[in-house]
Amino acid sequence: MDGPVLLTGAGGHVGRTVWQRLADRYDWRLMYHSQPDEKPEFPYFTGEVQDHEDVRPAMEGVEAVVHLAGDPRRDAPWHSVLTNNIDGTHTVYEVAIEEGVDRFVYASSNHAVGAFETPERTPDMYRSDDDFLLDGSEFPRPGNKYGISKATGELIGRYFHDEYDISVCNIRIGNLNEEHPPVDYERGQAMWLSPRDCAHIHDRALQADYEFEIAYGISDNDRKYYSIERAREVLGYDPQDNSAEWDGTEQTA
Amino acid sequence: MDGPVLLTGAGGHVGRTVWQRLADRYDWRLMYHSQPDEKPEFPYFTGEVQDHEDVRPAMEGVEAVVHLAGDPRRDAPWHSVLTNNIDGTHTVYEVAIEEGVDRFVYASSNHAVGAFETPERTPDMYRSDDDFLLDGSEFPRPGNKYGISKATGELIGRYFHDEYDISVCNIRIGNLNEEHPPVDYERGQAMWLSPRDCAHIHDRALQADYEFEIAYGISDNDRKYYSIERAREVLGYDPQDNSAEWDGTEQTA
Repeated sequence: MDGPVLLTGAGGHVGRTVWQRLADRYDWRLMYHSQPDEKPEFPYFTGEVQDHEDVRPAMEGVEAVVHLAGDPRRDAPWHSVLTNNIDGTHTVYEVAIEEGVDRFVYASSNHAVGAFETPERTPDMYRSDDDFLLDGSEFPRPGNKYGISKATGELIGRYFHDEYDISVCNIRIGNLNEEHPPVDYERGQAMWLSPRDCAHIHDRALQADYEFEIAYGISDNDRKYYSIERAREVLGYDPQDNSAEWDGTEQTA
Repeated sequence: MDGPVLLTGAGGHVGRTVWQRLADRYDWRLMYHSQPDEKPEFPYFTGEVQDHEDVRPAMEGVEAVVHLAGDPRRDAPWHSVLTNNIDGTHTVYEVAIEEGVDRFVYASSNHAVGAFETPERTPDMYRSDDDFLLDGSEFPRPGNKYGISKATGELIGRYFHDEYDISVCNIRIGNLNEEHPPVDYERGQAMWLSPRDCAHIHDRALQADYEFEIAYGISDNDRKYYSIERAREVLGYDPQDNSAEWDGTEQTA
């Protein structure tokens, strides 16, 4: 990967974690929803990802896309995720194809499969002595409208991969809410993705060879209920962290 | 099923086939996109399925929904399917939940899995001596934007089923373009759905007991590459037709 990499959602938590920690490894192009407070060290653009005219200048000459932009709220209303997430993802793919981009890394979410967390299974499934494990071979079961939009983004990627042969990696990102595992939140400990593992899995998704993948993006937590075997095998993902082993220090993004 | 059944897309080919052939079996409420040429024998409504205010009067007192409305064009542009199909399906589900509807039969499509028909597999897969068979356990692979919208409708149904316990049957409808199997079109012969089998599978979807299902809706064609075993088992679907046995007479809708 020598050419520029466009990262959308550059002002978000995952976005900042990825491009700042991988600042030396890629020639980033950053897309923000609105003007950033601080001018970043890479060329940047602002606009709506659902607007082709806003996306085109950011995509110029780009070799790969890391598409993270969208309404990130778990309780986002339908029309926001329909526009920002579903239509936005479709637009970014269309412009990527126009520009001949080779590779598309898409931020899917644990919420695409959130409805597996039924009252009968929880909180047991969040515990290390429980065997329940999703491995990505199951159909999505969105737990909210946001999750519908994320699973739809995977479908949109499936179409663009099949039709235009662009490599697509969907990362169902766990919980990067904090720089350390949440202390009193079992679900969050189960799906914690540490900042360095977050940067690493995106790095691997920009480097590995694959066609169309769906991988869970969490650290190697004792409590996990997502398998990370597929990410290990196909992406070469090698997570360093485990929420059970947190030593009390923070990994600042 | 004693209460009224709302059928959307009442003016479309599948819609007319279903409600006209099952006119004696259900107390239909019909929703049209625009004023029908001929006044139907059942209460009817007109409007946009993506508009809650248009859908609400049609949903009043309804026990089950057969949702067929949407842009049916294989080459429909993205913004049309985003609005009419994806947003429309979401609206009809939302209003159905508001009204306490028990059951939702959704017209999905063969186009939700159209990208399985690769240049390497075709036309062999359309022939009776070929073993390739999709059974509904595979992830969708949409072959066009219309197919993306139909697969997204299945996802939307998964969410509403998991969240509100409404029974959902997604029928991936084959080819009802003609009253007889297409004569010189192998793909169409493979996925032909005869008018009487079309009415019958919708009847079964309104009668059988299930939670959330994805079933292929085609006749028992020698050339089929969709398994109809799931439809037989869960819905009690018992198709009468086979494109290979067509005797030259038409089944008028």
